[in-house]
Amino acid sequence: MVLPQLRRTLTDRALVARGDHVLVACSGGPDSIALLHALHCVREQFGVTLAAASIDHGLRAESADEVALVEATASALGVPFSSTRLSLSSEGGSLQARARAERYAALADLAEEAGANLIAAGHTQDDQAETVLMRMLRGSGLRGLRGVNPARDDGIIRPLIDCPRDAVRAYAVSMGLQFVDDPSNEARAFERVRIRREVLPVLLAEDPQIVGHLAAIADEAAELETWLEGEVPDLPERGDRAIDVESLATMPSPVRSRWLRRWLLRETGSVPGRTHLRDVGRLLTGAGEVLLGSGWAVRRGGGRLCLEYRENRPTRSSRS
Amino acid sequence: MVLPQLRRTLTDRALVARGDHVLVACSGGPDSIALLHALHCVREQFGVTLAAASIDHGLRAESADEVALVEATASALGVPFSSTRLSLSSEGGSLQARARAERYAALADLAEEAGANLIAAGHTQDDQAETVLMRMLRGSGLRGLRGVNPARDDGIIRPLIDCPRDAVRAYAVSMGLQFVDDPSNEARAFERVRIRREVLPVLLAEDPQIVGHLAAIADEAAELETWLEGEVPDLPERGDRAIDVESLATMPSPVRSRWLRRWLLRETGSVPGRTHLRDVGRLLTGAGEVLLGSGWAVRRGGGRLCLEYRENRPTRSSRS
Repeated sequence: MVLPQLRRTLTDRALVARGDHVLVACSGGPDSIALLHALHCVREQFGVTLAAASIDHGLRAESADEVALVEATASALGVPFSSTRLSLSSEGGSLQARARAERYAALADLAEEAGANLIAAGHTQDDQAETVLMRMLRGSGLRGLRGVNPARDDGIIRPLIDCPRDAVRAYAVSMGLQFVDDPSNEARAFERVRIRREVLPVLLAEDPQIVGHLAAIADEAAELETWLEGEVPDLPERGDRAIDVESLATMPSPVRSRWLRRWLLRETGSVPGRTHLRDVGRLLTGAGEVLLGSGWAVRRGGGRLCLEYRENRPTRSSRS
Repeated sequence: MVLPQLRRTLTDRALVARGDHVLVACSGGPDSIALLHALHCVREQFGVTLAAASIDHGLRAESADEVALVEATASALGVPFSSTRLSLSSEGGSLQARARAERYAALADLAEEAGANLIAAGHTQDDQAETVLMRMLRGSGLRGLRGVNPARDDGIIRPLIDCPRDAVRAYAVSMGLQFVDDPSNEARAFERVRIRREVLPVLLAEDPQIVGHLAAIADEAAELETWLEGEVPDLPERGDRAIDVESLATMPSPVRSRWLRRWLLRETGSVPGRTHLRDVGRLLTGAGEVLLGSGWAVRRGGGRLCLEYRENRPTRSSRS
């Protein structure tokens, strides 16, 4: 069922157009190896050409073998292959977050060298479901339930996003493809591993369809957010920190909270929490002020909301 | 923290107005006993009067004792009390579904007799989180993530919806209130029991704030749905089963899917599944037809979508 679903996904989500040159990011794991093979099968139907690339993080001894495995697979399909080896800098962020950022930067470089305008990554429907659960556990609200974007503005596409992981693996096996089970550049955050091993099995016991349900929630949330973001009126001039309450009051509440989010993010440099947004929204109907943390406060003054910086004021830390 | 949160909930969610007479539905469990006591504490501040009521389902031997316990609690607070005993009819639906429907009908009768315009039920934030998880497991999409409505149009309010269950129970204990742990009319669906005992603990191990996060998702989804439902244009005359594609194409996609849902529900009598809605939406950009099940089909004919009944046609049962 991978090929029919892949065709539907490419069409329905408009992931590719005729003439696109797609760099398939390949770790050597079953998902990305299957993606390379399946895209190769449908390339003529969709009028696209392919290249393949691997990133060697150099974090594990086996990673060079994994790169060689991808190269052999690409070669057997007649797909041009390139790779690069990262040497992780020792500064900033967690090892996994840095590895991820550097992987994407290296892939963008390889895509440019290969003349590719798109990068295809092997995320499956299960990856999407896990992302939705992780976002839910972090309390990120409906925005977070969007999960990963299968068609990012920066040209990263995820053609397997509607295919269950089991089906993708079964496809790789049935096609006789070689793959490795835990390739280095698929190293998962511990959080995702726990979601996969501990949370999802419990949900699956309740409903065998839960992965599809979670993925559908991601699609619905993404569609809603895209529309809502388009409904949000323009912000005032940068540096304008006094807003007429009346102009806010005419916005529907979901639009207003997104407008406030953008305004506060631009002016304070940090994303306001949902409790802060709710409290700021309440200033529309009554006097008071909301301490946003980081020294910023929104105060109702007459018919306006005024954003003010008060370095010395205590900040409210609870998000109860 | 129950009383401060109860005051905020009553205010922010506008659950009561001065002069309201509220019938508190009391099972004898900790949640509803605490609700009765806490509402009694804030009744003067909010200018409301109270009555209490119990429903004896007669399903268990202890249920008469539970009614007596509620009566004693109400009497100690000086709150008028009434109760009624149900004799479950043996026809239709599951025992629990019928018990629930009959309980609400009996409560409405008691409210009318007591002259109450509102019925307060003891659902906590944990109940809301469990409802969101159950809806997610059923694949009900964002609409379902709304959970239970804390301020229903029919006058049922849930003043403890923002209070964690543990806090409510601790309140009942600290106030020296008597309660029973598994009152008959709180009999839970097995599904909810499994969610509470098996699913939530796993999620709580990942994030101790998960109940609040799920409840916030419910609030956000409810706010969005309320707004979206208001954005949906009127349906055509009843019986109009041919719709101009052009009028549909101008609607934003989330509005269109809700419009189609209403139209198909009214004309066919059954709720279309999300896959059917998606497929019907696709008819806007291409020819074809979608079999909805139950013999109904939507066909693209020229510039219109035509809804037709075809008793003898096979129906598509999959919701893949």
